Amino acid sequence: MKALYFDGSLALKDVPRPKPASGEVLIQVRLAGLCRTDLEVLKGYHHFQGIMGHEFVGQVAGPPGSPWLGRRVVGEINVGCGHCALCRQGLARHCLERQVLGLKDRNGVFAPYLSLPEANLHPVPPQLPDDAAVFTEPLAAALAVLEAAPPAAASRILVVGDGPLGLLVSWVLALTGAEVHLVGHYADHLSLTQPYGVITFKEGDLKDRNYEVVVEASGAPGGLELALDRVRPRGTVVLKSTYAGRYPLDPAALVVPEVRLVGCRCGPFPQALRLLAQRWIDPRPLIAHRLPLSQGLEAITQAQQPGTLKVLLDMREKVEGGGG
Amino acid sequence: MKALYFDGSLALKDVPRPKPASGEVLIQVRLAGLCRTDLEVLKGYHHFQGIMGHEFVGQVAGPPGSPWLGRRVVGEINVGCGHCALCRQGLARHCLERQVLGLKDRNGVFAPYLSLPEANLHPVPPQLPDDAAVFTEPLAAALAVLEAAPPAAASRILVVGDGPLGLLVSWVLALTGAEVHLVGHYADHLSLTQPYGVITFKEGDLKDRNYEVVVEASGAPGGLELALDRVRPRGTVVLKSTYAGRYPLDPAALVVPEVRLVGCRCGPFPQALRLLAQRWIDPRPLIAHRLPLSQGLEAITQAQQPGTLKVLLDMREKVEGGGG
Repeated sequence: MKALYFDGSLALKDVPRPKPASGEVLIQVRLAGLCRTDLEVLKGYHHFQGIMGHEFVGQVAGPPGSPWLGRRVVGEINVGCGHCALCRQGLARHCLERQVLGLKDRNGVFAPYLSLPEANLHPVPPQLPDDAAVFTEPLAAALAVLEAAPPAAASRILVVGDGPLGLLVSWVLALTGAEVHLVGHYADHLSLTQPYGVITFKEGDLKDRNYEVVVEASGAPGGLELALDRVRPRGTVVLKSTYAGRYPLDPAALVVPEVRLVGCRCGPFPQALRLLAQRWIDPRPLIAHRLPLSQGLEAITQAQQPGTLKVLLDMREKVEGGGG
Repeated sequence: MKALYFDGSLALKDVPRPKPASGEVLIQVRLAGLCRTDLEVLKGYHHFQGIMGHEFVGQVAGPPGSPWLGRRVVGEINVGCGHCALCRQGLARHCLERQVLGLKDRNGVFAPYLSLPEANLHPVPPQLPDDAAVFTEPLAAALAVLEAAPPAAASRILVVGDGPLGLLVSWVLALTGAEVHLVGHYADHLSLTQPYGVITFKEGDLKDRNYEVVVEASGAPGGLELALDRVRPRGTVVLKSTYAGRYPLDPAALVVPEVRLVGCRCGPFPQALRLLAQRWIDPRPLIAHRLPLSQGLEAITQAQQPGTLKVLLDMREKVEGGGG
């Protein structure tokens, strides 16, 4: 099969169809999403080599006799060792020996097929179209903010960054009843928050300070600078961004105002699927481009353009059945 | 009166005796402690100018008719505006208009007398000697760690740094029943934790990882590097150190393992006084040198020597009565 493969350079490469190990299933990919982290992989993040991509919705195609056969699924991206203390506590995503789909030691989803353990699968409700279900993973990541900074404690929350993740975070927070402010670059991105009642600002127009919670989802060091400037004493900054490079942290900026800086990564798939199935979150306005896998290189180039929201790779030409 | 005064250069300077404002008392200083932050002031921290010092025990000497007159006291160091939302929430230490004793817009304690609002005072129990009571402020700062990272959640805690603050933090944590490890430089400092059952390591000998909580009290950027290396996924790093300079933070080091970095500064005086009065904490082994105020410049020089624990300034030549 042809897959989008990175080994220092990026190419559509002929690779063998994956053979599911014991406890795994073979999944035929229907739609896949490009994430900012994929672009970081191209810069050397995790030194990953293999088939790229971790956001997908697909249909189980094997092995024969699997109870999952034919079901439409999304999948969690971390595959732990299953034995260590962290795995036994349900924290496989932090297993030191873990594989991560398309990011660490496991081939990803920019391909016609992938394999994944059954334990990672979540069935997609029938009424949920592919092009919403493909957002399950980033929506779950947005929902992780609710655990990192429980919103009950916060009357006003600022989200920094109007990319797909920042927008999803602002929507999820709005659904808790919080007063949510979003600061970003692009008027057309900010306008997508209108149905959720989020109050938006272009950079430079944000005058408010003393936010009890600030979520940094800008993907750039300037976002953390802004977050630490605007959080109130004893407030919380939730850090969602990973990027190459380092932020020059002044320790007094945390110690004197007793601010907490909380790293936050993956989140709960079942909650994300419920919000999508209920249509309380409709992520489809985030889709900027859809291309077939054969145009995977162009898709990457498009995703690299500043201000591009979600780029999807569509593998459904060869897939029977409907959806999305 | 002669006071240790900093205005870009440090000198024993003749200054007028303070006149307490309404709601304030005049306090005759008995003992004062030198803190690492005082040494940072000499490097330009907060651009402070005035009488230095914020750790003290003293005796109220005015105004006449004050219910506090003659009482031995310690005092909280932050003086808020009293009107803003933070002050009304009991968070005067985060008031944006606050003064801080010997650190920001208010003369400190390296002097025969200081003035302080009555609201900042705590009476010293009679059985508590001066040279233990003078540690109330740093012990309260150590106790603040219990709020920043509630120890019930943590089975093993690492403290980084064997200066006075690191040692006090390790003792306070040991009193919660936690398994406390301390990593530091100086064998004679580490040995002071023996009565508290703390397990100590010289740097280079610390093999353990996956601490649920790490407290960074080393006062140097290398301490945070070590803390982030040794904390477990989803663990907490409590940051106590302030220092000139910046730490080059890799955001992925927080985001991927979902680590929280919690700034932590001042703490509760009543709890500190109780631990001292019960002798559950005896800080006196931390005293390295005692000098009269007239030798204040020598005291600073001694405190600047690497590996020096607490240096005290003794103003009791002129003070009637006993203690310590």
